[in-house]
Amino acid sequence: MDIEEEVLVRIMPGADENKRIAEVVEKVKVNILESAGTLGVEVEPLLVGSVAKDTHLSNPDIDIFVLFPPSTRRDELERYGLDIGKAVLDDFEERYAEHPYVRGTLDELSVEIVPCFRIEDPSQRMSAVDRTPFHTAYVINHQNEGHKDQIRLLKQFLKGIGIYGAEAEVEGFSGYLCELLILYYGNFRNVVLNAKDWKKGTVIAFNEMAHGEFNESLVVIDPVDPGRNVASALSEENFALFIHACMEYHDNPKLEFFFPGDIVPENLEDLRQKLEERGTCVLGISFPAPKTLSDILHSQLRKAVRAIGKVCHMYGFGIIGSMYFVDRGVLMLFEFEIFSLPTIKSHKGPPVWHPNAFDFREKWIAHEKVSSGPYIKNGNWYVDIEREFTNAKELIEAKLTSLNLGRHINQSIMEGYGILVNDELVQERFAPWLTVFFNKKFRWEY
Amino acid sequence: MDIEEEVLVRIMPGADENKRIAEVVEKVKVNILESAGTLGVEVEPLLVGSVAKDTHLSNPDIDIFVLFPPSTRRDELERYGLDIGKAVLDDFEERYAEHPYVRGTLDELSVEIVPCFRIEDPSQRMSAVDRTPFHTAYVINHQNEGHKDQIRLLKQFLKGIGIYGAEAEVEGFSGYLCELLILYYGNFRNVVLNAKDWKKGTVIAFNEMAHGEFNESLVVIDPVDPGRNVASALSEENFALFIHACMEYHDNPKLEFFFPGDIVPENLEDLRQKLEERGTCVLGISFPAPKTLSDILHSQLRKAVRAIGKVCHMYGFGIIGSMYFVDRGVLMLFEFEIFSLPTIKSHKGPPVWHPNAFDFREKWIAHEKVSSGPYIKNGNWYVDIEREFTNAKELIEAKLTSLNLGRHINQSIMEGYGILVNDELVQERFAPWLTVFFNKKFRWEY
Repeated sequence: MDIEEEVLVRIMPGADENKRIAEVVEKVKVNILESAGTLGVEVEPLLVGSVAKDTHLSNPDIDIFVLFPPSTRRDELERYGLDIGKAVLDDFEERYAEHPYVRGTLDELSVEIVPCFRIEDPSQRMSAVDRTPFHTAYVINHQNEGHKDQIRLLKQFLKGIGIYGAEAEVEGFSGYLCELLILYYGNFRNVVLNAKDWKKGTVIAFNEMAHGEFNESLVVIDPVDPGRNVASALSEENFALFIHACMEYHDNPKLEFFFPGDIVPENLEDLRQKLEERGTCVLGISFPAPKTLSDILHSQLRKAVRAIGKVCHMYGFGIIGSMYFVDRGVLMLFEFEIFSLPTIKSHKGPPVWHPNAFDFREKWIAHEKVSSGPYIKNGNWYVDIEREFTNAKELIEAKLTSLNLGRHINQSIMEGYGILVNDELVQERFAPWLTVFFNKKFRWEY
Repeated sequence: MDIEEEVLVRIMPGADENKRIAEVVEKVKVNILESAGTLGVEVEPLLVGSVAKDTHLSNPDIDIFVLFPPSTRRDELERYGLDIGKAVLDDFEERYAEHPYVRGTLDELSVEIVPCFRIEDPSQRMSAVDRTPFHTAYVINHQNEGHKDQIRLLKQFLKGIGIYGAEAEVEGFSGYLCELLILYYGNFRNVVLNAKDWKKGTVIAFNEMAHGEFNESLVVIDPVDPGRNVASALSEENFALFIHACMEYHDNPKLEFFFPGDIVPENLEDLRQKLEERGTCVLGISFPAPKTLSDILHSQLRKAVRAIGKVCHMYGFGIIGSMYFVDRGVLMLFEFEIFSLPTIKSHKGPPVWHPNAFDFREKWIAHEKVSSGPYIKNGNWYVDIEREFTNAKELIEAKLTSLNLGRHINQSIMEGYGILVNDELVQERFAPWLTVFFNKKFRWEY
């Protein structure tokens, strides 16, 4: 049995599971109609997503849309949509996409119930949610039996290498993107074969129709809406990671790509030694995880790490690498090439023959922060002045609460944070994260 | 009495001195003719330079050219020139410009005796030495009595601020350049008034004749040879310094510009404290001064300091300032903003989709110098590897003897050198140099 057959055996939902899924789908549909009747609204339940397409892995989300007539008022759709969802499920929580929706369980299976407008023609302007039924229909109409397992293989491969999902936490490949890639290339092996040679700016289109111009790394034109790039959520880094994974898998297919081992945290002594061997300074910012939607949280964290890195760079503190980690708390890690700088710095002014030269000299000639100068070097004015921050910790301490890091992160930081440097970071609770941060391995290598 | 009158009183050669100078000039001329007669060659002695133009300061060099017929063979000119010079002077040394010449004393006055070809027309191709008689004639023909003192003032001003002389040690203003500036602007005050507003690329021409294109900071077309920039030896830094000195002198004329105080070396304790306050690392390279022509020495030293600075920069060690100093020994000083770097560095490779990506990964995947990776960041390969040099001293120790620093400097360094860092530099013999290096004042401010 080859590797891919073995993977399929492990990921295919069994007949029992599929029977239970079908029963729950039926029950949800009936309950939706019943609940809508009670509320006096006319709706149509529609199974969408991977279960509808028979491309789901084991333990899938069952996605049921509740289609409202286009004439429905938006506030009514939102209110009734939630009411129906809550009435149908055993337990639930409200979630937010373009409309609020309900996620929960029925008979112990995961179910999402999402209200949306019924749209007859995908050329109408529509939201991503409204587009979903058309995606489902497109895949169902274009796939054959053989495609389904190949889609499952690709999904599991992406799960294994850690880039399955278009959400902000992952910035990877959506289920729909996987389906389109299999429809385009025919099977999993052929996706691998082609993707290993992808270049930045690769464009995949299913027909000759005019389509939008995109500047993302990978462009997959949505056959249902040629103005949309199905791969728009994919980060450049994950695009590159996928290409590399395909190269490696092509040369040396292994089960570990689909089922990577767990990351085993190194012990504290090893981490301390690693830190010492690298001779860098590692600074961590730790604060409670903001309570907000995962997409918002991750997109803010990503931006916040970039913003802090940028400030450090502006002040001359060079960063080799940065990452963030979340569980109940957040830890942002920054590894510095340059963590400390001298008391003074050389501050460059205008050329001597520049109209501002006089003002520069006047400003600094008797300034208390001057160590030497103003002086002339290569025709320019310079002055050696006291540096505002002589190490990156001072800088971050001074700036952290005033930087715009996104509303939720700013709030969390106001509640309390810690800045830890080097050995202060070597703690049991951070060990798994430090292990990842230092080793920089690919998931299939752990 | 205003400042400039006071300066003139101090710098004008007195009547006695001028009488002695005239006597020596006469005696040299007579002796040259006599000595040439003995050797059987036909020459003409010609007084040139500042004494000929009556623009000399006290204690001048008396420059006497020995004009040979154009038909003279070059080797004969050189041999007879030296023989005549040696026969005429009380004591002497050989010097080298375009031809060898003799510099020495007669009746305790400094005399230079320089052989050259008699050229009838300055449009003939000629060397800088051959041009001198034409320069002398031009100034004599164009100056009036009033110009002479103004030229003396400008020369003393430039002496005072440290940029009088076109030689490599100074990279400043030649005597001829001073004379032309006074002829052009009329008097010293007017030079100051105009020069304070000079911009980079200022061009001064004495007539409408076509002239060469130059890209130096200051261009003064030689009225005797419009293909030549009289200010070509002036460095950008000294051009800027002159502009600034003119600005300051214009606002606040002071005797100190003409007669700056001596630099008083700070005591060692103050220097040590200064170093500590700046928080930088200062590295000095000390070796015996090469025995060579001053022009060659200074031009090689300047290039060598630049070359060492460039290597440091390449390896990530940032320099705030560098200078060299010479007496019997040379000391090169480098002040570092970044003197030490971590054990590892992040080494950037090609993008994942680049044809070289595979080779990069192959090279580093199991390399002994790797700390982590190869890994992917923003679509590029990176690897964290051991840094070759973790501080600038190690780097300089490893590279110094293999860098091309100019033949004479390389030789001197091979004979032995020292690399001193921070407190190791705080020694009595280096104190005057460290004082200049740290204070970065202008000469008129000491």
